[in-house]
Amino acid sequence: MRNIKLGLIGFGNIGTGVVKLLKENADILERRLGTRLILKRIVDIDITSQRIVSVEPQLLSTDVNSIMNDPEIDIVIELVGGYDPALHFITEALNKGKHVVTANKALLATFGNDLFELAEKKAVNIGFEASVGGTIPIIKTIREALVANRILSVLGIMNGTSNFILTKMTDDRKDFKVVLKEAQDLGFAEADPSFDIEGIDTAHKLAIVLTLSYGKRVPLDELYREGISDISQQDVEFAGELGYRVKLLAIARQHDGLIEARIHPTMVPFHHLLANVNGNYNAFHIIGDASDSVFLYGQGAGMMPTASAVVSDIIDISRDILKGISWRVPARSFQEKVIEEIELMPVDEIISHYYFRFSALDRPGVLSKIAGILAEENISIATVIQKGRKQGQAVPIVMTTHRSKEKNVQRALRQIDRLDIVQDRTVLIRIEDDRLS
Amino acid sequence: MRNIKLGLIGFGNIGTGVVKLLKENADILERRLGTRLILKRIVDIDITSQRIVSVEPQLLSTDVNSIMNDPEIDIVIELVGGYDPALHFITEALNKGKHVVTANKALLATFGNDLFELAEKKAVNIGFEASVGGTIPIIKTIREALVANRILSVLGIMNGTSNFILTKMTDDRKDFKVVLKEAQDLGFAEADPSFDIEGIDTAHKLAIVLTLSYGKRVPLDELYREGISDISQQDVEFAGELGYRVKLLAIARQHDGLIEARIHPTMVPFHHLLANVNGNYNAFHIIGDASDSVFLYGQGAGMMPTASAVVSDIIDISRDILKGISWRVPARSFQEKVIEEIELMPVDEIISHYYFRFSALDRPGVLSKIAGILAEENISIATVIQKGRKQGQAVPIVMTTHRSKEKNVQRALRQIDRLDIVQDRTVLIRIEDDRLS
Repeated sequence: MRNIKLGLIGFGNIGTGVVKLLKENADILERRLGTRLILKRIVDIDITSQRIVSVEPQLLSTDVNSIMNDPEIDIVIELVGGYDPALHFITEALNKGKHVVTANKALLATFGNDLFELAEKKAVNIGFEASVGGTIPIIKTIREALVANRILSVLGIMNGTSNFILTKMTDDRKDFKVVLKEAQDLGFAEADPSFDIEGIDTAHKLAIVLTLSYGKRVPLDELYREGISDISQQDVEFAGELGYRVKLLAIARQHDGLIEARIHPTMVPFHHLLANVNGNYNAFHIIGDASDSVFLYGQGAGMMPTASAVVSDIIDISRDILKGISWRVPARSFQEKVIEEIELMPVDEIISHYYFRFSALDRPGVLSKIAGILAEENISIATVIQKGRKQGQAVPIVMTTHRSKEKNVQRALRQIDRLDIVQDRTVLIRIEDDRLS
Repeated sequence: MRNIKLGLIGFGNIGTGVVKLLKENADILERRLGTRLILKRIVDIDITSQRIVSVEPQLLSTDVNSIMNDPEIDIVIELVGGYDPALHFITEALNKGKHVVTANKALLATFGNDLFELAEKKAVNIGFEASVGGTIPIIKTIREALVANRILSVLGIMNGTSNFILTKMTDDRKDFKVVLKEAQDLGFAEADPSFDIEGIDTAHKLAIVLTLSYGKRVPLDELYREGISDISQQDVEFAGELGYRVKLLAIARQHDGLIEARIHPTMVPFHHLLANVNGNYNAFHIIGDASDSVFLYGQGAGMMPTASAVVSDIIDISRDILKGISWRVPARSFQEKVIEEIELMPVDEIISHYYFRFSALDRPGVLSKIAGILAEENISIATVIQKGRKQGQAVPIVMTTHRSKEKNVQRALRQIDRLDIVQDRTVLIRIEDDRLS
C-alpha cells in the first residue's frame, strides 16, 4: 500500500502537537490506517527555535513553495491561523490538487464559500474538525452521525476562554476584570481578549455549525452577538440563587425555514448538562428530530486535544486517497449545489425566558410601575427577588419571566429605563429552558 | 447518480423507525447524499399487522430470499435481533456480496470474529453504530474521531433499563424490586429482565467497545460482570450521603498491554458527568492520550434514536457504494490482520476505591477488629459512617477506602465475614474516581 505524504505549514503550538502525535502514535496510526503517514516538510517563519518535539533539520523550511511545488505531498496541513497568508496558502494548495486540513475557523467562517466551492471543483477534501470544539467530533457528528436528522437545535459552549472566566467568576466570586487578568497571566486569555470575550470566536464557530446543520451560507455580520464583558458578579450570584449558571452560549434553532441564531451570555439551569461544563471545556447539545438529545463534551482547545482532531482529519482524507477517491462526504454536509443563503429569524422575533436586574429607587410603588409596563407588553413575571432596603437609594430588583418575545421585552425595558425612579440601565440576560430530557 | 437499494429484514420496533425515517426525511437525506435511497423490500414473519408507518403492500414479503436473491439490493438491514436466524441472514447477505447494517450487539459480540473476517474477504461493509449506545456515535467516535489516540479508558453507562431502575431507586427512594416492576409495567424492562439487569447486554456492548478501542478479540465469558439486582435502597442512600450516585458502569482501561475490563454497579461522584446521566439515557466517557476527556450522551435505545444510527450507517455505506469502494474504514477500527486476542487483567489485580457495608453487632471493639483486618491487608480507610445504636443487634457500618487492590479486599472481606460479630455478608461496591477534569 502506498504511503501518505504530508506537508505542515505552521510549526506553532498546534503544529508542534500534530508533529508530536504523528511521531508518538505512529505505530497505532499505521495499525489503524494500514499504511504509514510521512511528514515530508514543515514550513514556518521560525525554524530555529526549539520545540518540545525534535525533528530532523532537513524537514524544516521557511519556503512554502517547498510544499506547494512538491508533487509527492498529498495533504497540506494549514496551522498558521488568521486570514493572511493562510487564505493564500489554502487556495494555492487546493489549486495544486492537494487536500487541506485546517483548524482555521475565522478563515472558514469568512471565506468558506469560495474555498469549499474550489475544493469541490478540484475534487479534493478540506478537513476542518479542529476548527470547532477542538477535540470534540462536532463536525463528524453533525455531518455523519446525525445525517438522517433534521437538526432542530444546537446549543454550544464554543469558547474555552469565556467559559473559564465565567466559571471562575461563579466559583471564586470574583469580578470579570480580576478573573480576566488571572486568565491572561495563566495564558488562557490573549493580551487582546476581545475575540474570545466578545463572542467573535464563538460567532465563527456558530457560522460553521449553522452551515453544517442547515446547508446554508451564513453572513457572519448578521449573527446576533453579545459578549461576556458586561456580566457582573452580582448577576452571577443572582443566577445561582435562582438555580442557574451563566454561560456564553451559541444557539441555533430551526423554525419552518427561518433559522434562529444568536450568541450571548445565557442562564442555564443547574440540572442541564451544559450548566455543568466548567473551566475551559466546550460542549454541544444537539437535538435531532430522530436522535433526540445528543450531548458532546471535551477540550475545545489546547495543543494535544486539537492535534487529535487535526490528525483524525488527516486519517480520514488518507483513507480516501488510498481508495483513489475524494469528496466522499460533502464538506458542508449538504451537496454543494443545494446550499443556499440562510434566512435568519430577526432577533426581535425570538422567544425566550428572561432575567432582568432593575436598578430602582427603594420607594413605594416602584415594583407596581415596573410590573405594569411589563404587563402591558404581555410579559409575565415568574419570580421576583428584592433584597436589602435603602430608603430613597437604588437597590437591585431581580425578575425572571415566562416565555416572552424579544421585541416586547426591548420595548418594555426602554420604557422602564426612562422612568425617573430607575437609576441605571436594566441588565437583561436570557434564560435557556431547552431541556435534555 | 445511481440510486441505492435497500432490503430490510425485521419490521419490528426499530425496523418501523427506520422505514419512517427513510420516508419522512427522504428530502434531507437526498440533499446530503446526492442520490435517493430506495427501500425495495421489507421481510418479516408478520406482514399483516398495522405499523405506525404505511408501506406499499408489494414491498412486504415473508421470504428472506426475495432480498438475498435480488441482485439490485445493495444493503441488507438486519433488525431481527437474537442469534438465530439473524446470524444466518447476515452470513448469507455477506456471502452474496451485500453490505450489512445491524443493531445486533449480542450477535456481533458473540460471532463478530467470523462475520468481520467474512466481510473483509467479501469486500463489503458491516455497519453497527446502532449496536452500542443507540443514537450516540460511540463507534464512529472511537474508530474515526479518536483514531489518533491510544484509548486510555472508556467508562460507559451502556444499558438504559438498568440506569432507569437505578435512577428511580435514587430519586424515588424505592426498592429494586418495586422499581423493576414499574419499569416492566412501563415497557422499559422485559418480562425476563436478566439480560439488562445482570449486565449481559452491557457485556455485549463492552466487548464491542474493547475491540474497537484496542483492536482485540474479546471472549465474552471472560469479562468480569456483576448486575444490579443486589443493590439495596440502603446502599443507594449511603452512596448519596457520601456524595455518589450508583451506576451500572462498564469500564475498560489500558495498562501496558493488559486490558482491564469489568461491569459492575459503581459509585460515581456527583460532580462527574456520568453521575448526571439519568433515566434511560446512555453515556460514554473516553480518555485518549491526546484528546483528553471526551464525553458523549444520548438515547441508548428507542425507535427513532436507534433508527437515526441505523440510517447513518446506511448513508455511510451508500457513500462508499457511490464511489465504488468498500472497507474504507476497518470495521473493527484496526486492520483485520493486526487484530489479536485480548489479554485481560485478572480481576484480582484491579485497583479501585471501595465502599463496604458491614452488618456487624453493635458491641465495643467491633470497629477495631474490622479496621485491624483491613489494615493487615494494606487497605486504608477514607471514611466511616456508623449510624443508630442497637446494643447487641446488627447495625450497618459503612466504610470507603483509598485505592486498594481487589485481591487484598477480597481476602479481607473473607476474614471479616467469618467473624462471629458479623451477621450478614459484607456488601462491596466499587467507587470510580476517574475524573473529567
